[in-house]
Amino acid sequence: MGSVAPLVKENKTSGSVKPIVDLTRSDMERVNALILSKAGSDVEMIPEVANHLISSGGKRLRPMLTLATAALFGYRGEHHIRLATSVEFMHTATLLHDDVVDESDLRRGKSSARMIWGNQASVLVGDFLLGQAFRMMVETGSMEALSVLSDAAAVIAEGEVLQLSVSKKMETTEDDYIAVIRGKTAELFAAAAEVGPIIAGATAADRKALRDYGMALGIAFQLVDDVLDYGGDSADLGKNVGDDFREGKVTLPIILAYQRGNDDEKAFWRNAIEGGENDDAALEKARFLLEKHAALADSVDRALSYGEAARAALSGLPRSDGRHALEEVIDFCIARIN
Amino acid sequence: MGSVAPLVKENKTSGSVKPIVDLTRSDMERVNALILSKAGSDVEMIPEVANHLISSGGKRLRPMLTLATAALFGYRGEHHIRLATSVEFMHTATLLHDDVVDESDLRRGKSSARMIWGNQASVLVGDFLLGQAFRMMVETGSMEALSVLSDAAAVIAEGEVLQLSVSKKMETTEDDYIAVIRGKTAELFAAAAEVGPIIAGATAADRKALRDYGMALGIAFQLVDDVLDYGGDSADLGKNVGDDFREGKVTLPIILAYQRGNDDEKAFWRNAIEGGENDDAALEKARFLLEKHAALADSVDRALSYGEAARAALSGLPRSDGRHALEEVIDFCIARIN
Repeated sequence: MGSVAPLVKENKTSGSVKPIVDLTRSDMERVNALILSKAGSDVEMIPEVANHLISSGGKRLRPMLTLATAALFGYRGEHHIRLATSVEFMHTATLLHDDVVDESDLRRGKSSARMIWGNQASVLVGDFLLGQAFRMMVETGSMEALSVLSDAAAVIAEGEVLQLSVSKKMETTEDDYIAVIRGKTAELFAAAAEVGPIIAGATAADRKALRDYGMALGIAFQLVDDVLDYGGDSADLGKNVGDDFREGKVTLPIILAYQRGNDDEKAFWRNAIEGGENDDAALEKARFLLEKHAALADSVDRALSYGEAARAALSGLPRSDGRHALEEVIDFCIARIN
Repeated sequence: MGSVAPLVKENKTSGSVKPIVDLTRSDMERVNALILSKAGSDVEMIPEVANHLISSGGKRLRPMLTLATAALFGYRGEHHIRLATSVEFMHTATLLHDDVVDESDLRRGKSSARMIWGNQASVLVGDFLLGQAFRMMVETGSMEALSVLSDAAAVIAEGEVLQLSVSKKMETTEDDYIAVIRGKTAELFAAAAEVGPIIAGATAADRKALRDYGMALGIAFQLVDDVLDYGGDSADLGKNVGDDFREGKVTLPIILAYQRGNDDEKAFWRNAIEGGENDDAALEKARFLLEKHAALADSVDRALSYGEAARAALSGLPRSDGRHALEEVIDFCIARIN
């Protein structure tokens, strides 16, 4: 699929990553250096595979969250660099394993690692990066950070297995869907935002506020991603429009359109998602039905609600450049819809 | 392949797991209960996949090593149960990922998880078990144990990637091969034997002695496994005879036979391992050449040397039932060859 005009055009928010990028610039340079160093190995295939994905330039939102939330509480040490790098490695490991799980051929607009080096390398290099992530956490000496990030590792995998269990099943409920994205996506945002205050020695209340912020932000982020799968531009998206549809992923837009559809439409969705009748014509019809039932717009509304929850979680903190930067990230994540 | 008579018949050692099984019996009951509990999840597919492998009954040598080495230094707490379970989960996660990497259809004599639930479930449930392992380590509060086991996680993956890099390459040297099995197998034996003394508060010298024991034992164990692949009984082996050959794995027996072969024989090995000409007739010829050049017997000799190194590592410890049990494990691992 080439470029496709976005289905959702309402611009309800704006926002920018610039404040958080500016705030964390010098720390991120150190994180990027540590990423390259810790993805190194005498076994040549490891840096080859790891750097293919690392150099393809995700936005590195998650490590920026760790750096920004540590700075918010005045942290002055070195360990936030290691924790931010651990968070990014956990994310990279998940992407490598996801590509095997989804049988994806594109990731961030490039051939996925599994297409070049095979499933084996993707699985094993992901395992290596996860091991390196835990090594760096140990180096910080923070058992609390280890606790949060090991919880996250288990919960992320649980969310991914849940996604697999409900895959190609039209009886998936909105609650199932939220449980999936809470695990597979939001848990790492929450952990990334929680280990910042932990390493800075913030209060339990502040830890919880930042965790809540990360969780709501992560849910909003994934909701928007799932909307973009039906209306984004594949160059921006870094994957093909309609990938979720072809993989039989039951995301919120589909759940809403199915609930609101007549019997014929329900049959169409079952054939497409459960029966694999998902060619380009079916994708066009799916997009028509999503628009007919305002399923994409209503999914964006859900994302906006979670965005408000993320903003509310920060409301007890003193106003500062750091808090402002975190608020702008919320708007940015949702404004990707344009 | 059905049952095949063993090629290597010399019984140079005997040995038994009975002493270590007896020594750790009550603790292993608690480990087994913790395994079942921590493999549980509301996401039903997780215990299904995990229990398929867990209930297929490996010998659980690795957790027994942790329990026995903690007991050796008089440990009286609870944390060795958690560490032993973590070690077994790391092993189980590796097996799940290995089956995807090797495209195996058999594991411990049963259909592999990936054959029943697909590659996706094997990758993700492996990730979940690894996350659970780190959670349990955190519960022990031992940063030293976390350090040893997170190192192991990275080194194991590195060994597996190295194995992938040298796969189907007849220029693989004996040093390459030892580096592979040191990483993919021996590192976890070493870590399992080191975290026992760590949790028991043993001296650095004792920690090192037990780590050296585990490392040498693990190398011997894998050497014997690789010999058995050419001469074991598939019922005992839990996999098919000749699997390594068909997968193009360059193990020590092949390296020795290749080095000692004439030009025709070298061409045969290259065609088989690099060119994929590995049908049953080729396997028969391979076994003939391995016998002709005493490649299996000499590989067993190498295993015996590592077994002696493992025994020597224990020599500074006072004689005890615990030390005796660890010595018997060495002999047992090598005596599997009969």
